[in-house]
Amino acid sequence: METDALSLTFSALADPTRRAILARLAKGEASVTELAAPFAVSMPAITKHLKVLERAGLIERGRDAQLRPARLQAAPLKDVSEWLERYRKNWEESFDRLDEYLQRIQKRRGASSK
Amino acid sequence: METDALSLTFSALADPTRRAILARLAKGEASVTELAAPFAVSMPAITKHLKVLERAGLIERGRDAQLRPARLQAAPLKDVSEWLERYRKNWEESFDRLDEYLQRIQKRRGASSK
Repeated sequence: METDALSLTFSALADPTRRAILARLAKGEASVTELAAPFAVSMPAITKHLKVLERAGLIERGRDAQLRPARLQAAPLKDVSEWLERYRKNWEESFDRLDEYLQRIQKRRGASSK
Repeated sequence: METDALSLTFSALADPTRRAILARLAKGEASVTELAAPFAVSMPAITKHLKVLERAGLIERGRDAQLRPARLQAAPLKDVSEWLERYRKNWEESFDRLDEYLQRIQKRRGASSK
């Protein structure tokens, strides 16, 4: 069981339904019923997803016992972004290399068609 | 079992040892022995982590049957970065609000100490 904050965040994000819930909450708070509506999953399944998101600090839930609206808490996503930044040069380099390769191929094609 | 690319990537990143392996590979390719050295885990455990990273497309392994050096493949991290960008305004807003709150408190303190 990994319990460091970044592992908890990544683990919570490793599910398309949970990511869809976050996308919905980015537009504003919502109740469990509202969150469940677009998905072909049961309310208990949504509640379980919300618990995973809450444990990772990605959402906060209201105190109202009936509705407990969920709200996005974006701070853990900022931490992910900071972690990712270290690798930006790696993916930019690899795309630059692909670009160079494609340009070389195009030049060669241009030369051979003359 | 989630198999969409983004879920695979997030799941592979949800482990501190796997993230440390990526950090090492960001500096250049390395063999399993080199990768295992800094960790208090067995070689088979490292090999298993490498399989998870490879399945997520985060590393590529050489063909040399003996060494099979691992290389970082940063393209999936670029996809994560693009996914995250949608939420940038959410975390920036929440930090702006925290900032305003702290400034308000400081002003109030300044006023009460006069």
